[in-house]
Amino acid sequence: MSGSPLLDALVDALRCLPGVGPKSAQRMALHVLERDREGARRLGLVLGEAVERIGHCRICRTLTEHDVCGICSDASRDPRSLCVVETPADVLAIDQATGFRGRYHVLLGQLSPLDGIGPEELGLDQLEQRLDAGEIDELILAMGTTVEGEVTAHYIHELARQRGIRSTRIAHGVPLGGDLEFVDRGTLSHAFASRRDY
Amino acid sequence: MSGSPLLDALVDALRCLPGVGPKSAQRMALHVLERDREGARRLGLVLGEAVERIGHCRICRTLTEHDVCGICSDASRDPRSLCVVETPADVLAIDQATGFRGRYHVLLGQLSPLDGIGPEELGLDQLEQRLDAGEIDELILAMGTTVEGEVTAHYIHELARQRGIRSTRIAHGVPLGGDLEFVDRGTLSHAFASRRDY
Ligand SMILES: [Zn+2]
Ligand SMILES: [Zn+2]
Repeated sequence: MSGSPLLDALVDALRCLPGVGPKSAQRMALHVLERDREGARRLGLVLGEAVERIGHCRICRTLTEHDVCGICSDASRDPRSLCVVETPADVLAIDQATGFRGRYHVLLGQLSPLDGIGPEELGLDQLEQRLDAGEIDELILAMGTTVEGEVTAHYIHELARQRGIRSTRIAHGVPLGGDLEFVDRGTLSHAFASRRDY
Repeated sequence: MSGSPLLDALVDALRCLPGVGPKSAQRMALHVLERDREGARRLGLVLGEAVERIGHCRICRTLTEHDVCGICSDASRDPRSLCVVETPADVLAIDQATGFRGRYHVLLGQLSPLDGIGPEELGLDQLEQRLDAGEIDELILAMGTTVEGEVTAHYIHELARQRGIRSTRIAHGVPLGGDLEFVDRGTLSHAFASRRDY
């Protein structure tokens, strides 16, 4: 309640951003109005354009404003290696943190029959077509280790196995340099059970 | 570098918001595109409208989309008490935290002749007109305690004194419940020098 309904509306609208509560929304609104109107104007335009134009890649389902995303259309990327992830954020995380130069399939969810999320909702028909095309020789499963994640991984592993395609799973365990004391019990228990010969 | 130039542009544009670095900008962009497109569309529209329409109140200089702000046009507020602050954020902070029901003058800066900020840039001609109108009997100085803030407070105190109007200064010191150990030296030194009889 600033006495300016439009300022109040701006503070309220900023709260659609994750991690932005009433205090920081107010600070953001005042900051851009006092010190960066050009940045705010540009953000307003880009937000509208992004919401209007960004959809999902026809092949891998990550976010893109084109029919086919930059990764799927990049001829320098290895078509033999396909990594399955849950979200577009996972694509960015793997591309930014690893040397992976293959391609992706983005599930946009996890199998959850009770919520009506079956193979079709995860684009697994498209994934099967890609597996059938015969170019892929490794399917990397990079989804989370929740119950639904495990079920999803198992289901997709079966799709690969039926076609004689090798599937691998990224390693889960204690983070590098992680102090055991601060690692959650589930991770520690998994890391312990997955121990290897030294 | 997400492979989507429009997503990259959105991440970049979000960084006009204070406290938003590259990581949180990316998280915000992905969040709204995956989960809250309606919120993002609304934020885009409200940002554009706010930048277009919000200016400064003709009387007190706080932010408003009207010629005269909600506080200045609120007949229930006491016209005898005028509080001088540096920013529109200060107006909101005082209105939200205190029972003050008077009016404001917003400096939008501090006296700083070397930077070309003189009385005119702080709207002190308008403030003098309000003091001359004869309704005000207390001028509350609520600017910061930097060197420029002190100079500005002294200058405005003189404008009031010349007209026989009482001016007061908000108290500065150790925050309530503040542990002395964690209070900065300047505040502690000021609080010590400003000690009163028990
Ligand atoms: Zn793609
Ligand atoms: Zn006003």
